[in-house]
Amino acid sequence: MIDDAELARRAAAIEWLVLDVDGVLTDGRLVYGPEGEALKVFHVRDGLALRMARRTGLKVGILSGRSSPPIAFRARELGVDELILGRSDKGVAFAEFLARQGTDPERVAYAGDDLPDLPVLRRAGLGFAPADAAAEVRAVAHVVLDAEGGRAAVRELIERLLRARGAWEAAVAEGFGG
Amino acid sequence: MIDDAELARRAAAIEWLVLDVDGVLTDGRLVYGPEGEALKVFHVRDGLALRMARRTGLKVGILSGRSSPPIAFRARELGVDELILGRSDKGVAFAEFLARQGTDPERVAYAGDDLPDLPVLRRAGLGFAPADAAAEVRAVAHVVLDAEGGRAAVRELIERLLRARGAWEAAVAEGFGG
Amino acid sequence: MIDDAELARRAAAIEWLVLDVDGVLTDGRLVYGPEGEALKVFHVRDGLALRMARRTGLKVGILSGRSSPPIAFRARELGVDELILGRSDKGVAFAEFLARQGTDPERVAYAGDDLPDLPVLRRAGLGFAPADAAAEVRAVAHVVLDAEGGRAAVRELIERLLRARGAWEAAVAEGFGG
Amino acid sequence: MIDDAELARRAAAIEWLVLDVDGVLTDGRLVYGPEGEALKVFHVRDGLALRMARRTGLKVGILSGRSSPPIAFRARELGVDELILGRSDKGVAFAEFLARQGTDPERVAYAGDDLPDLPVLRRAGLGFAPADAAAEVRAVAHVVLDAEGGRAAVRELIERLLRARGAWEAAVAEGFGG
Repeated sequence: MIDDAELARRAAAIEWLVLDVDGVLTDGRLVYGPEGEALKVFHVRDGLALRMARRTGLKVGILSGRSSPPIAFRARELGVDELILGRSDKGVAFAEFLARQGTDPERVAYAGDDLPDLPVLRRAGLGFAPADAAAEVRAVAHVVLDAEGGRAAVRELIERLLRARGAWEAAVAEGFGG
Repeated sequence: MIDDAELARRAAAIEWLVLDVDGVLTDGRLVYGPEGEALKVFHVRDGLALRMARRTGLKVGILSGRSSPPIAFRARELGVDELILGRSDKGVAFAEFLARQGTDPERVAYAGDDLPDLPVLRRAGLGFAPADAAAEVRAVAHVVLDAEGGRAAVRELIERLLRARGAWEAAVAEGFGG
Repeated sequence: MIDDAELARRAAAIEWLVLDVDGVLTDGRLVYGPEGEALKVFHVRDGLALRMARRTGLKVGILSGRSSPPIAFRARELGVDELILGRSDKGVAFAEFLARQGTDPERVAYAGDDLPDLPVLRRAGLGFAPADAAAEVRAVAHVVLDAEGGRAAVRELIERLLRARGAWEAAVAEGFGG
Repeated sequence: MIDDAELARRAAAIEWLVLDVDGVLTDGRLVYGPEGEALKVFHVRDGLALRMARRTGLKVGILSGRSSPPIAFRARELGVDELILGRSDKGVAFAEFLARQGTDPERVAYAGDDLPDLPVLRRAGLGFAPADAAAEVRAVAHVVLDAEGGRAAVRELIERLLRARGAWEAAVAEGFGG
């Protein structure tokens, strides 16, 4: 965990928000039908916050070890800027992402909940963990959220990030305070 | 939050109960299949309470930023008087609703859980927020419910509203106490 | 709430166990698809306990205000002795059930969670309410369970009932202790 | 419950990890459609931990009283070494499993949540129960987990087992710490 001054310093550099899916945008439950994953359960307030984040100029990426049609649909609906699925080697996938986008890890805020997320969390400018993330992940994250994965944890993350950048009140007012 | 006397005064004027869907009639989870939202999870006790409310003469409306076939089906089943879907500009949609119905905001009780609901909550005669609504919404609501969205929050809302009007005991006795 | 001696006295007379579905065998959530209720979520430990109850000679009935194919399937699977669906007038339906089976209310244990269950709970020899039942229902029930509906509340009910009849240990040993 | 020394002694002998499904790999909820069980809800962190356990040389079996296509699919995906479905006589099924694999109960760690699991838990070298298992099961288990079934209880089990064997840190480093 870092203090507010360090959070503000790191938040000011962020250009990308990259998110793990299972355990972050969802509560980690995998809903199987006869032919594998059938449904994916997201949270409505995460979607709204992601739209607010993009409106402030942040780019949004998804980096998941798994892949299924519902993720792809939700990502398109939210207008995700990079969608990386089926990569359990997240450290490698993250390095490729940085090269492809021509950006640095200091410019990326990342949220993950389990061991495969560790290599990314160790490099990212800001690392977030939901309240119910694995202990190893919570130990490494710069910020441990109050919310559990799938329970609007990404909404909390975005509010904290935008507040640290002094951009939350304006984002609320612009979008919804009219 | 308002005190009981103010709640009774405001409740006496209410003719319409207008509800947000995600986070109020549901717990905010969005269940995606390969082609978008596949299922919507409501609560049985909300449905019963809405029928009781309508039997006492209240009209019921739904105002959602999203739209999906399960909402439409549930609304028809409950006999909703106005169904407004796919309107993220809720303040505008609410003004249109008032004009269309020839009613005033003081005659409307509204329940919402997130930022897009703020413009409506600020105008409605009575504004309700589930226990797990966004902080901004809880700050503006006249009543913050004990129940979380999707966990019979609307049942609690209707019981509080009818009690404030002195109509709960009669509604229970008429419908079920025989 | 009644004391242990009264529970034992009432339990000794029970021949039927009649259960509400939504809020008792489920947690009250209604899962809607485009054409209405699509899924029903039961608990595995309730099913096991119902089989144990039937093996001790108890008959099992279901009395629901709603109706859907998943309930009917689950009821057949569990070997339910009477399946009464789509009856929101539960007091009347219960009277018809008693006449049809030639039994008395004192011989029936009933579990319900909301207002339509009140007329049955007031007549049944033993009335049970899940921990999260409506206040009116908890006030009338002979026993308020520790478990919430859909979280193995029926398992707890059956264990309490069989213990009060001195039949739990034998039921466990016969079925599974071998 | 056993102390750490006894846990280490028993853990050292384990070659197989055999798991009940409902209430262990899931939270015990059964999702029914019109033709029976339609979906099965697993947890992403259990899947990761099972892959880690197999990489350390442990074999993984599933022993369920029920059977449905989603279990079979998930088991294939995880690369389960023995899949035993539809056996409510778990004590007998376990004895057959031991004979078929030519192994001893002391070499098996087993996790279960309800009465049918008791005969297996009484024989297994290590018996685990989720936090919300039936009281009879918690009383017999060598270790009662902090996690409830379906909420990454198997992840916790595997971490405890590998830690007791001194193999957890290496498993983390090998798979994800690079």
